Amino acid sequence: MNNSGLTPSANSSKHNDMANAIRALSMEAVQKANSGHPGMPMGMADVATVLYSKFLKFDPAKPNWPDRDRFVLSAGHGSSLLYSLLHLTGYKDLTLDEIRNFRQLGSKTAGHPEYGHADGIETTTGPLGQGLATAVGMALAERMLAERFNTLVDHYTYVIAGDGCLMEGISHEAISFAGHLGLSKLVLLWDDNSISIDGATDLAVSDDQGKRFEAAGWDVQTIDGHDAEQIEKAIDAARKTNKPSMIACRTTIGYGAPNKQGTASAHGAPLGNDEIELTRKQLNWPHAAFDVPVEILDCWRTVGTKGARLSAAWEENLNAQSADIRQAFETGQSGEIPADFHDTIAAYKQTLSDTAPGWASRKSSQEALNVINEHIAETIGGSADLTGSNLTKTSHMLPVTPEDFSGRYVYYGVREFGMAAFMNGIALHGGFIPYGGTFMVFTDYARPAIRLSALMGLRVIYVMTHDSIGLGEDGPTHQPVEHMASLRAIPNLNVFRPADAVETAECWQLSLEAKSTPSVLSLSRQGLPLLRLAHTEENLSAKGGYELSAANIEAKVTLIATGSEVTIAVEAQKKLEAEGIGTRVVSMPCWELFDAQDMSYKTETLGPGTVKIAVEAACSMGWQKYTGLDGGFIGIDSFGASAPAEDLYKHFGITAEAIVAAAKERL
Amino acid sequence: MNNSGLTPSANSSKHNDMANAIRALSMEAVQKANSGHPGMPMGMADVATVLYSKFLKFDPAKPNWPDRDRFVLSAGHGSSLLYSLLHLTGYKDLTLDEIRNFRQLGSKTAGHPEYGHADGIETTTGPLGQGLATAVGMALAERMLAERFNTLVDHYTYVIAGDGCLMEGISHEAISFAGHLGLSKLVLLWDDNSISIDGATDLAVSDDQGKRFEAAGWDVQTIDGHDAEQIEKAIDAARKTNKPSMIACRTTIGYGAPNKQGTASAHGAPLGNDEIELTRKQLNWPHAAFDVPVEILDCWRTVGTKGARLSAAWEENLNAQSADIRQAFETGQSGEIPADFHDTIAAYKQTLSDTAPGWASRKSSQEALNVINEHIAETIGGSADLTGSNLTKTSHMLPVTPEDFSGRYVYYGVREFGMAAFMNGIALHGGFIPYGGTFMVFTDYARPAIRLSALMGLRVIYVMTHDSIGLGEDGPTHQPVEHMASLRAIPNLNVFRPADAVETAECWQLSLEAKSTPSVLSLSRQGLPLLRLAHTEENLSAKGGYELSAANIEAKVTLIATGSEVTIAVEAQKKLEAEGIGTRVVSMPCWELFDAQDMSYKTETLGPGTVKIAVEAACSMGWQKYTGLDGGFIGIDSFGASAPAEDLYKHFGITAEAIVAAAKERL
Repeated sequence: MNNSGLTPSANSSKHNDMANAIRALSMEAVQKANSGHPGMPMGMADVATVLYSKFLKFDPAKPNWPDRDRFVLSAGHGSSLLYSLLHLTGYKDLTLDEIRNFRQLGSKTAGHPEYGHADGIETTTGPLGQGLATAVGMALAERMLAERFNTLVDHYTYVIAGDGCLMEGISHEAISFAGHLGLSKLVLLWDDNSISIDGATDLAVSDDQGKRFEAAGWDVQTIDGHDAEQIEKAIDAARKTNKPSMIACRTTIGYGAPNKQGTASAHGAPLGNDEIELTRKQLNWPHAAFDVPVEILDCWRTVGTKGARLSAAWEENLNAQSADIRQAFETGQSGEIPADFHDTIAAYKQTLSDTAPGWASRKSSQEALNVINEHIAETIGGSADLTGSNLTKTSHMLPVTPEDFSGRYVYYGVREFGMAAFMNGIALHGGFIPYGGTFMVFTDYARPAIRLSALMGLRVIYVMTHDSIGLGEDGPTHQPVEHMASLRAIPNLNVFRPADAVETAECWQLSLEAKSTPSVLSLSRQGLPLLRLAHTEENLSAKGGYELSAANIEAKVTLIATGSEVTIAVEAQKKLEAEGIGTRVVSMPCWELFDAQDMSYKTETLGPGTVKIAVEAACSMGWQKYTGLDGGFIGIDSFGASAPAEDLYKHFGITAEAIVAAAKERL
Repeated sequence: MNNSGLTPSANSSKHNDMANAIRALSMEAVQKANSGHPGMPMGMADVATVLYSKFLKFDPAKPNWPDRDRFVLSAGHGSSLLYSLLHLTGYKDLTLDEIRNFRQLGSKTAGHPEYGHADGIETTTGPLGQGLATAVGMALAERMLAERFNTLVDHYTYVIAGDGCLMEGISHEAISFAGHLGLSKLVLLWDDNSISIDGATDLAVSDDQGKRFEAAGWDVQTIDGHDAEQIEKAIDAARKTNKPSMIACRTTIGYGAPNKQGTASAHGAPLGNDEIELTRKQLNWPHAAFDVPVEILDCWRTVGTKGARLSAAWEENLNAQSADIRQAFETGQSGEIPADFHDTIAAYKQTLSDTAPGWASRKSSQEALNVINEHIAETIGGSADLTGSNLTKTSHMLPVTPEDFSGRYVYYGVREFGMAAFMNGIALHGGFIPYGGTFMVFTDYARPAIRLSALMGLRVIYVMTHDSIGLGEDGPTHQPVEHMASLRAIPNLNVFRPADAVETAECWQLSLEAKSTPSVLSLSRQGLPLLRLAHTEENLSAKGGYELSAANIEAKVTLIATGSEVTIAVEAQKKLEAEGIGTRVVSMPCWELFDAQDMSYKTETLGPGTVKIAVEAACSMGWQKYTGLDGGFIGIDSFGASAPAEDLYKHFGITAEAIVAAAKERL
């Protein structure tokens, strides 16, 4: 083992030059930005060089080639490693100017890799542990897609993760799930450098990682991460096992920096010009900053171009498929949903309006899914061990198992955060539309990955049931109160809270049609009467909020409600009108879509000049933007309690009577 | 192994009677409530009986005896197990009526155990995995307190956890951390019943849990969880190891219910009256519902009373200590902070106002901690591997290590969620005031435990630095935008965002004084000038918001800002007044405290009749409650970007110029 970084390497000089090009670009980019993390790229340069030059299947000219291998830098702070690789192998987006412009406004080279900023960035990473979990989702998607299109899909998913990733709880969910499913084409390269920000990792962790991964059903190898031959042999072996593989790569953080390598000071700050000069000497890299000599760049560009042959062969194969197979594959890849989907939902809505079922909205969701899953082949359902509560499984769906990936339903286990990250990976991989369920309150567990769904603009659909004190006896730990507000606060996330079966179908339609926005469906445990008895072909929920029930006499009051409370608002409307107070009810299933409407629609819908009362069994935060300071709010600004649901609604004063009183107070 | 539950047990009839009393009360309480989880209590009744009758050190008459053993039911859905135990052993709170009243409004017997509802409930559980992590915090607190008061503190922490707990990511953080520190007085009893809600656990998980725990440095045993002798031997052995211990208790879920045991149908629904009758027969329990025969109750009450002798001996020992030791111990237990604390902070504020340091508020926090940690012996600091960034360590603080628990600083590792749950455990245990840091954006990772801090009313202080786009180059994954709003939405949580060093000291004071409310301190990475140049002995932040800078001419505009944006608001004030527009600046470090003031103070502070502009480098959600619909907001309602901080403030338009324009638009 070469842990000092100072002994001569047995690696070929070509390898060393290629690896040193990564080291040089990385340390120079960080230095120029005066901000960043040189240690990891320098430490993992040898591993990355072997991976990209000997194994990774990719074509920089066709960055979205569906059968490319996926590479995920879970230790996202080492972004300059990825940018260096993309630049060196010839991705057009990653010019040398972009490398020089590291971490500057408008550059493609953000502090952490940002999905969508440049080709070759497969996912946004930085929040530790999530890259690994996202990669597990990609590897699962690969297995599922290969089962469906077996000659078109056959690729690996590689991950580089650091000590931080493996300390995060989500790493457990990820490796346990991958081990359970036997995702054998997943290869994790652990940057085992014994250093984290606070210092030596043994300040805080003593895990036997090899044993830990073995316990989860992984194949484990340990190598010197600076020895190209060991790296190559290990990756080769990892590809051949029938388990997911972890390769512990013993490395020296900041490899090559004589005074800083192997210490926390190489982790997260520029090396400084003096140390960079010494590093150049140490590495035999006598070139100017950002100067990669043409013969070394050529070696890298050759790596980049050899993928062209593979991608061309793959396209030939695609073209040789039957029209049906090709179309099915390309439809999945495009992410388009069938052209007649709107009509299908409209017809289903007609049935609902005719039969007026009084389902809980979680049940309405399942019924909508019966239609959707029949109609859209790409949906992949699942739940974090609450299938019978979330009602996420439909009769079409067979489970995905270690032996059979042809199914469409994933038992994610009690892994809410993992499930969300896996779904991000499935969505990023392409070919599928993932949705998954848990209780609404446990959006807190999944939240860091929901945020990444939103930041990356992924169509991931969160089916969050038991969405208020209406869940009853399980009590305050299980009763969401602040969750509508906290999810609405996340940018680029549509939070839907439908009022009945028709709205639930509409919100499902909107979720599926939002190709670059994730959705949360907030659904009731308790039964809800059908309110949309008059069928409309139009998706009324598409405007986010609309007048559900007009006043029968001149409107003095507007009640704005969501989900299960729309029924209560309608009840209050009857009482108010019985007292001669004209009252409208606005159903507001989605703030985000309502806010995007034009001002006149919004003003009109909210009822100018009327007393406005918002009703939601959740906290008041944010409702003032619709009610103004003069309006009222009926909801709950404390934690809930354990009792039957009806008792709780009374106890917390979320009743038609309370709405009536709040309205009359303000008239 | 007795996995069928139908073979005769070799257990003593006394043991069986005692265990069956738990089973009977549990299934009957669930049946009466028509809601709940009978399977776990019935499956773990043997283990619980042995634990409580042979090992657990407790005195129902002195439920808060500091040296009692702690028992945590991490699988909180099995709450009726705990309630049965507390009733049977004689806790006054847990009458038979309370058992009968399971899951009803106002009862002490909520659906999940709720801390504070009844004596003997050591922590709120239900959100899976957190009980285990909280117990790790308790076990750490025990070691730390024993180091300080060695003859007064010597107790165990026992946890019952289920499959769900061990699937959750936080279980990894908990067992890894406990293994690292070698918390040998922690004993985990795993209810290994191979069943979760969706069915057999092998639908979703294949971990070798024994190997997994060994990899984390735990001692592991596997036993038949229905064999009293095996249980006793295993717990005895677990207490003697020098590692934390995991005992895999192979059990049958719903043990005794002939048609439902061993299946998911026993997990989360009443057994039904027919099955209950059959279970009575199966268990030889011919007694009526809720009827525990007096001779069996006596066995249990004897268990409960034998602790009285131990607690009396302990009190004698306490009384025999020197006055100093006793006082130090009791001060820690009381949770009181020194009477002169306000004066200490006031004197420190005077120094700040005199010297006007331009520190980042994270640095101001560290400087305040220098004063606080000198003055309050009970604070325990820490960080999730960002010590040098969060500035949570002061020079007084030596690290807590596996060899030495006398330190006051905990290297929590890259375990944000774990850290928060560990801190909950430390606070629940008593004797300490925990605070811990990470980046503000990673409150998302810790959020489920922050919620429990709030729900339980624990004094846990979250030091959350890098609190806006002001962190700069790390980019949107690391830049909080929605986090102020999402944290403010949590009930009973004080969210502070101080504007300068004086406010930071004030907010620290308020956090420490709030004995039953957790606090988040939202702190800047970037430097901030001192604004509170005029010293006040009064803690102005205590009102949540106050006029920081009055208008020099008749006020037309009120700028309401927090944290780093107060400086920008003051700059805008100058510009507006230079144009003849009288402008006030209100600093609003804490919404929650402001909202608790009387209406006249609030109205006056917000400047009736003035144009109101809120300024915060965060999303707008909720600010309308102060500005009204006519007011303005300067902030950021999208994700951030990667660039130097100054560039970002300009790019997102959070500038004095933008404030001026927004104000003038509305005049």
